[in-house]
Amino acid sequence: MALPTRVRLVDVGPRDGLQNEKQNVPTGTKVELIGRLADAGLRVVEATAFVSPRWVPQMADAAKVMEAVRGRADVALPVLVPNLKGFEAAVAAGAREVAVFGAASEAFSKKNINCSIEESLERFRPVVAAARDADVKVRGYVSCVLGCPYQGEVKPTAVADVAWALFEMGCYEISLGDTIGVGTPGGVKEMIEAVGRRVPIKKLAGHYHDTYGMAAANIYASLQLGVAVFDSSVAGLGGCPYAAGASGNVATEDVVWLLKGLGIDCGIDLDRIVETGRWISAQLGREPASRVARALLARRAAAES
Amino acid sequence: MALPTRVRLVDVGPRDGLQNEKQNVPTGTKVELIGRLADAGLRVVEATAFVSPRWVPQMADAAKVMEAVRGRADVALPVLVPNLKGFEAAVAAGAREVAVFGAASEAFSKKNINCSIEESLERFRPVVAAARDADVKVRGYVSCVLGCPYQGEVKPTAVADVAWALFEMGCYEISLGDTIGVGTPGGVKEMIEAVGRRVPIKKLAGHYHDTYGMAAANIYASLQLGVAVFDSSVAGLGGCPYAAGASGNVATEDVVWLLKGLGIDCGIDLDRIVETGRWISAQLGREPASRVARALLARRAAAES
Repeated sequence: MALPTRVRLVDVGPRDGLQNEKQNVPTGTKVELIGRLADAGLRVVEATAFVSPRWVPQMADAAKVMEAVRGRADVALPVLVPNLKGFEAAVAAGAREVAVFGAASEAFSKKNINCSIEESLERFRPVVAAARDADVKVRGYVSCVLGCPYQGEVKPTAVADVAWALFEMGCYEISLGDTIGVGTPGGVKEMIEAVGRRVPIKKLAGHYHDTYGMAAANIYASLQLGVAVFDSSVAGLGGCPYAAGASGNVATEDVVWLLKGLGIDCGIDLDRIVETGRWISAQLGREPASRVARALLARRAAAES
Repeated sequence: MALPTRVRLVDVGPRDGLQNEKQNVPTGTKVELIGRLADAGLRVVEATAFVSPRWVPQMADAAKVMEAVRGRADVALPVLVPNLKGFEAAVAAGAREVAVFGAASEAFSKKNINCSIEESLERFRPVVAAARDADVKVRGYVSCVLGCPYQGEVKPTAVADVAWALFEMGCYEISLGDTIGVGTPGGVKEMIEAVGRRVPIKKLAGHYHDTYGMAAANIYASLQLGVAVFDSSVAGLGGCPYAAGASGNVATEDVVWLLKGLGIDCGIDLDRIVETGRWISAQLGREPASRVARALLARRAAAES
């Protein structure tokens, strides 16, 4: 099968990334990050999450972030909502797209959102219905699609069941998350094929973590199956919540490099995304986790010395 | 095409890795590293280089290393030799396999070994002839197969020409090196296909650098074409000589993880290779560059805390 000629990237850095940061990131920095990502060519940026500040204090400024960025017409800005209350707050703040977060692992669902997979789906149903009435798009996440930190193995058919439930409910796209980054291309192929028997491939997104350095290989395997949407996080923001010091979300810079090399258009300017990653990493007092950024910045430093 | 069921890994850490280290590594540490790699299941370890200590002081103890490890019957221990003088010293120290190092880039050849590609091949010819007479195997390297730090683009046909020249001369295997790690799977495919029209695929090895995080993807693309030998460096030893602070050789641990995930047998024990990478990194006073090692060691630290 020929690779897709065009791919859409969804930068999840401002939400999935910054949510896992220990330090408090000022609202203005979040807003500037979203603007810089859009300027670099991202057409979808996950902006924030309307969740309980008791559980996720990093996202307590969700309404402020949303109000500051919602005027930007050239970029879709989905926000995570765990339930109807979150949905209503999101829409009140101007959100035109939301995301719901399910799991393919029963153990992870119970530990992470304190309910069974079935219960989580029941909780999402009124959100998706309300979104339809308000003409708001809903993106669905499935986590632990290639392994679970609590139960280990996750069956491809379990992923397909949850993906189908979210799609049938009305989610326009299903993002398949290798939450702990353990997957390799063979498992990706098996999983995508299983999900693809229930949900059209064009409605799927790959959301891979680079914890074990496999994200680029897993994206390549997904491209070979026709997947044309991928989630990534500028500078690899967020790290891995299940292994301190290890990498989390694949860095947007690395995915852009891969796609550029494959001749696939993603509309993102490599220099600008590297600069955006360098900037937000400097705000957080660290180096970008992106290998491409490190290599290019090292090359630049060598040329200047 | 089905993936190979068995893959051979060549750990180049003791030579290609340690050669790029700024600090002086004691001979005993090098010898222990080679032993630990063999204990972990490596059946080919590039042990050292018989080169001028004026140019490569890190390898000045080549004869001592070789004499200490040559008794080990379960592992092939190729050593790099730049010319006939190096070959004779290697054989005198007990080497039963050598490697010669050519380039697919004219500019790199001139900068790196101070002669044209054609001149370098002429220099290797008497080495390969002497090796044949002494019943010593010769492995051939081609560097810059996916890009050159000096001339930029390198044509697949240029790689094929040099690979064929080395193969025709008598090299039993041709290792194709992405010396600066810029390659992506599309370029890998084009290059392997071009070389494969001249040299049997079973005689090729992929030698990929992880500088831009693409090594696992490039190995996967190579496996899909039937390549079943890969070079790697435990703990990613060596880094990138063309971008200080960036990654160089793909880490053996990461390749073992990839192969394990794909159900491909490489005979290497994951825990032992991770432990070997942790040990040599500690000797050098740093963390392993392997993402798999970092993730597994972080997971272990979390479980113990």
